[in-house]
Amino acid sequence: MSHPQTTFRQTTFTAPSLLRTRRATVSRTTVHAQLSQLRANGQYDCFKLGWHPIYDDRSRWPAPLHLFWDSDVAKWIEGACYFLADEYDVEIDAAVRELVVMIRGAQHEDGYLNVHFSVVEPGKRWTNIRDMHEMYNAGHLIEAALAHRQYYRNDLLMDPIAKYIAHIHRRFGPAEGQIRAYPGHPEIELALLRFYAATGNTEAYDLARFFLEERGNPTGQGGKHYYDWEMERRDEPRWKRPNSWPMDRSYWYCQAHVPILEQESIEGHAVRAMYLLTAAADLLNISQKSSSSSSTAPVRPLTAAPAWLAALRRLWSSTVDKKMYLTGGVGAVAQWEGFGIDYFLPQGPDEGGCYAETCASVGVMMLAERLLHADGPAPNGRYADVMELCLYNNVMTAMSADGKAFTYENQLASCEAARSEREDWFVCACCPPNVTRLFGSLGGYLWDYGGGSGVGEEGKTGSAFVNVHLYTSAEVKFPVESAEVTFSQKSNWPWEGNILFQLKGAESLNTTIRLRIPAWAAQHGHVLTPTPPTGTATLEEGGYLRLDPSYTVSNPVFSLDVGGASFAPRYIAPHPYTNQRTLSVARGPIVYCVEDADHTWEENHFKDVGIKRGTAVEEEWRVDEKSGEGYFALKTTGWERSPEVLARGEDGVERELVFVPFYFRSNRGGKGQMRVGLRDDGR
Amino acid sequence: MSHPQTTFRQTTFTAPSLLRTRRATVSRTTVHAQLSQLRANGQYDCFKLGWHPIYDDRSRWPAPLHLFWDSDVAKWIEGACYFLADEYDVEIDAAVRELVVMIRGAQHEDGYLNVHFSVVEPGKRWTNIRDMHEMYNAGHLIEAALAHRQYYRNDLLMDPIAKYIAHIHRRFGPAEGQIRAYPGHPEIELALLRFYAATGNTEAYDLARFFLEERGNPTGQGGKHYYDWEMERRDEPRWKRPNSWPMDRSYWYCQAHVPILEQESIEGHAVRAMYLLTAAADLLNISQKSSSSSSTAPVRPLTAAPAWLAALRRLWSSTVDKKMYLTGGVGAVAQWEGFGIDYFLPQGPDEGGCYAETCASVGVMMLAERLLHADGPAPNGRYADVMELCLYNNVMTAMSADGKAFTYENQLASCEAARSEREDWFVCACCPPNVTRLFGSLGGYLWDYGGGSGVGEEGKTGSAFVNVHLYTSAEVKFPVESAEVTFSQKSNWPWEGNILFQLKGAESLNTTIRLRIPAWAAQHGHVLTPTPPTGTATLEEGGYLRLDPSYTVSNPVFSLDVGGASFAPRYIAPHPYTNQRTLSVARGPIVYCVEDADHTWEENHFKDVGIKRGTAVEEEWRVDEKSGEGYFALKTTGWERSPEVLARGEDGVERELVFVPFYFRSNRGGKGQMRVGLRDDGR
Repeated sequence: MSHPQTTFRQTTFTAPSLLRTRRATVSRTTVHAQLSQLRANGQYDCFKLGWHPIYDDRSRWPAPLHLFWDSDVAKWIEGACYFLADEYDVEIDAAVRELVVMIRGAQHEDGYLNVHFSVVEPGKRWTNIRDMHEMYNAGHLIEAALAHRQYYRNDLLMDPIAKYIAHIHRRFGPAEGQIRAYPGHPEIELALLRFYAATGNTEAYDLARFFLEERGNPTGQGGKHYYDWEMERRDEPRWKRPNSWPMDRSYWYCQAHVPILEQESIEGHAVRAMYLLTAAADLLNISQKSSSSSSTAPVRPLTAAPAWLAALRRLWSSTVDKKMYLTGGVGAVAQWEGFGIDYFLPQGPDEGGCYAETCASVGVMMLAERLLHADGPAPNGRYADVMELCLYNNVMTAMSADGKAFTYENQLASCEAARSEREDWFVCACCPPNVTRLFGSLGGYLWDYGGGSGVGEEGKTGSAFVNVHLYTSAEVKFPVESAEVTFSQKSNWPWEGNILFQLKGAESLNTTIRLRIPAWAAQHGHVLTPTPPTGTATLEEGGYLRLDPSYTVSNPVFSLDVGGASFAPRYIAPHPYTNQRTLSVARGPIVYCVEDADHTWEENHFKDVGIKRGTAVEEEWRVDEKSGEGYFALKTTGWERSPEVLARGEDGVERELVFVPFYFRSNRGGKGQMRVGLRDDGR
Repeated sequence: MSHPQTTFRQTTFTAPSLLRTRRATVSRTTVHAQLSQLRANGQYDCFKLGWHPIYDDRSRWPAPLHLFWDSDVAKWIEGACYFLADEYDVEIDAAVRELVVMIRGAQHEDGYLNVHFSVVEPGKRWTNIRDMHEMYNAGHLIEAALAHRQYYRNDLLMDPIAKYIAHIHRRFGPAEGQIRAYPGHPEIELALLRFYAATGNTEAYDLARFFLEERGNPTGQGGKHYYDWEMERRDEPRWKRPNSWPMDRSYWYCQAHVPILEQESIEGHAVRAMYLLTAAADLLNISQKSSSSSSTAPVRPLTAAPAWLAALRRLWSSTVDKKMYLTGGVGAVAQWEGFGIDYFLPQGPDEGGCYAETCASVGVMMLAERLLHADGPAPNGRYADVMELCLYNNVMTAMSADGKAFTYENQLASCEAARSEREDWFVCACCPPNVTRLFGSLGGYLWDYGGGSGVGEEGKTGSAFVNVHLYTSAEVKFPVESAEVTFSQKSNWPWEGNILFQLKGAESLNTTIRLRIPAWAAQHGHVLTPTPPTGTATLEEGGYLRLDPSYTVSNPVFSLDVGGASFAPRYIAPHPYTNQRTLSVARGPIVYCVEDADHTWEENHFKDVGIKRGTAVEEEWRVDEKSGEGYFALKTTGWERSPEVLARGEDGVERELVFVPFYFRSNRGGKGQMRVGLRDDGR
């Protein structure tokens, strides 16, 4: 059981690509800019346990403004450690070392470690697990510790964190005298399972599994739902509730309305849901791994594994088929930062909502990566398609090309109240460091690989495999028995669909390689060069082209072309049940938008502009001067028709429209007017 | 200043018409059925002040289930008195008399009169004016008293109610020692202004005006917003809030976010908003009346009259142009029974929402009727168009053809969780008696009229006027000086557009008549017979055809034909900014829907059915056997295409579609599947 956060170090981004450019920007600029923000806003020093003026602020209940500071620091440490592995930086190194010293100094004798409940409300530890994010913060500290150990090869952060895990493990669980709580904001579960996978610490496994299995139990604590029990102990009436709850007992906001296995559809807070399901997938994968291999410490068998797999598939489908924007964004509703009803996907806040939080799509990517391992050796390309969709659209749009500004929400259409723009930082600063962490560990998302005795589908000694999920220019090295296998890909993805592969060091192995054919490319066919003999290259049901060892052994250098037609601009539209009769333009995995920067005549956020499916689209290669990033702009013809003009059945004003990638929005000034889906004017 | 609730008695529905049939159904069936419900559910006896088991129910906070019982009784009395005037009924008469005795017996020495605070929480009078509906109940009692006096010609109910008004007037107001409160649910304001208009009671006027002017004052009570002040006295934290409030301090739910004159858009609870604006229009109309005539008691001049007129026009436009369904329904959001953001008008609960409460459209009708008087002698037909739209669609659909079942919400598309069906009664029973009251006083909405010295636009003695807003078959009698004028109309409206008029008894008067040309008919022209000499029939800017006295004196019998083409079935669609790319069918003022009763193949609430604008529509006259009501059904061709079929670009299954009036839905059994707006498949 490995995680992209662990395996990414085996991958190198080799040649210029959009992903490499962005990673370099994050490494050189973002990590520093975010450190400056932490220093300027108080987070950097928070583990010194001094008083900060913001602690007096009582304007937000239940979670005060500073409640996430522990996690802000932890997530920055995690991301910083990922990038230090790429390129040493003396300032970053020094900051990480100093923060670790401060964190160690903040730990209580009994292992407890949390800023708010050490400084602001020292008597109230664990009294509001629903809202107060102690476990969420703990989870990010665990992830920071794992990244820290990986880079520094010491346990300066791991030791206090293991002690904190033990503290939590003593207090919470199913045994007599323990409390049957689980965090309001899931995160610690996936962190604990990574901790278990990296260390074999069974306390971490048991705790995570307890949280996952107990969650939503209507009679868990004293015969009551844990949150009811806890609320009564705080002497709160059920009518007193956070602003994110539309109704009393909106426990779906905390993913606690029913046990996970009983959830029929994805509901509530999108980030919490995705983090939780990622942990559930980890639980399942660990169970499958442990039943098929002896390489990890023994764990209690997960007898309900089939039910977990069914729940994961069901909730994935609910998320992706009914509640995901064309851009990979999830969560239409700002109030609870989460999911609306099925097919409720308005494009912007002034049209009914659109939240599409950055962190939520990072969560979808994590979940998708886990699910790629859940189906056995032949993965389902649907997960990778969505992973790529999120990466190049909703996630990548969350950072400016210069790496200094970020988004939290990623609406598909701007309005006066929510322009298309980015901010340097946020009071609740979850999203920016999540982008850093994701780009830092991105290499781990490109492919799965392995080999050796009993590994690989043939199951025989001396076999290896690589499943390629994302294309770019990169190289991975991994050992198989005595060999070091090097596998590389080189392409101009996401702009062109020809990828050159090279396999080295695998001469003595039976190597199976799977190449994902994206769903949007499947209809255009694909060409493998050299041409494979019959039966040596099979398109599997999951959408991967499986290359037999007999092919890879004879052809250590080969190329895949998913077809030039796959990269022709295409019109896409949301599901008809969304009632969003809009038309958008995409090219390869990139979804496009229009911006006022290219249309100085626009005054109304493109509300009145329609396009017709089938109108010719021209491509224009542009290079952004500031960032050096190149991209295809797309040009077509649209019609600007006000409601009055439409009502009269007139044509309106014919307009040349320029589309740029959604991820590139808001990098060139302008008025912040932007739209992905334009009015569908038919053919 | 007269109100339709007063003037309706001068109008008689003369010949068979849809309106007359419905009124007869209400009179013969509904009034009795609702009385049975009141008897069965406890309301009938509530003024006896005994205990009822429901008073123990604490499941709903802040307003317990029985909180509106006073108003349920009052509204029934009001409606019953309207229909008693039509047709005497011994059982109804006896019930009204008994209820009045009980109400009189429930009044406290000091004038206070409320069931809940007499029986359940006797110590807590006026401690939660925001939520506890004391004034709302008082308002309906006032309206009941007015209707009672009108029919019974005694003050058995007026006396206790005047005493109650005096009680409230002592307690609330701007003077030293008074409390600057205003009701969370407006209603009493319009009732007080009717009370003033009917009696000249200046306490009623002052109180209503105080409530209207004080509402939303951020520093009204002790330097605070009254609801903040009151909440603090109840020792409630701001985070404790009713389920109808999405956020803390959602005072827009109570129409108290800002003073009325500062409201830029219509927000919050739709019924509260419409009742409040109706009262505001009354305030304005009284001011205009009192400044131009000496017939009412003098009142303090409304110096801000222009600001009130501007606010009313602004909020009317916000309601009608941006937040109204094609059916005249308002309020997309169930949680607060009210308005969403501009153009947010999904068709059903499973598509994002659709509340369209019956009472809200009754409120729109009341407001429209008031605004028809706000612009001087030449009314704006826009108000009457919307009044008619509401009447024949969102209001009329709220009652079954047999008069026994009702709706509360009136979604434009059903779903499994909200089928198209009606109920016998509701726990919160505001809507059914509102339908009764509306049909009871319907004659008052048809037209305005008057005359005499200084009346009429010519301003000379001996002039009269009739402004005809709604067409049907009816006759009105009204005195002008020594003459009794009789004016009648006869038509097959809403099915045909030819109306025959007759003016009698006006031979000695200069009579101006205005006939509304509906906006949907305007483009087809109109024919007046006999043909008017040049200058004697003018289409005014407001959309009324003004007939000069020189025409009416020579032509006491004349007819208007708004053109057969006006009654041809037409395709209508919501505003493009709604992003609802749907197409609906209308004919005259009637909006249509499809129901599964005519389409046994339908399984998916018509989600997959599209129609094409311009496809020929055939008419079929049908007569419903049970009710005897006739209507035009409309037939056209549609295409059933699932999302998969659509995605493949295929035609799908061609279907014959039968449309019936939206008001007639759910009268013929079936599975409760219904839809107004079908997928717009273009031309």
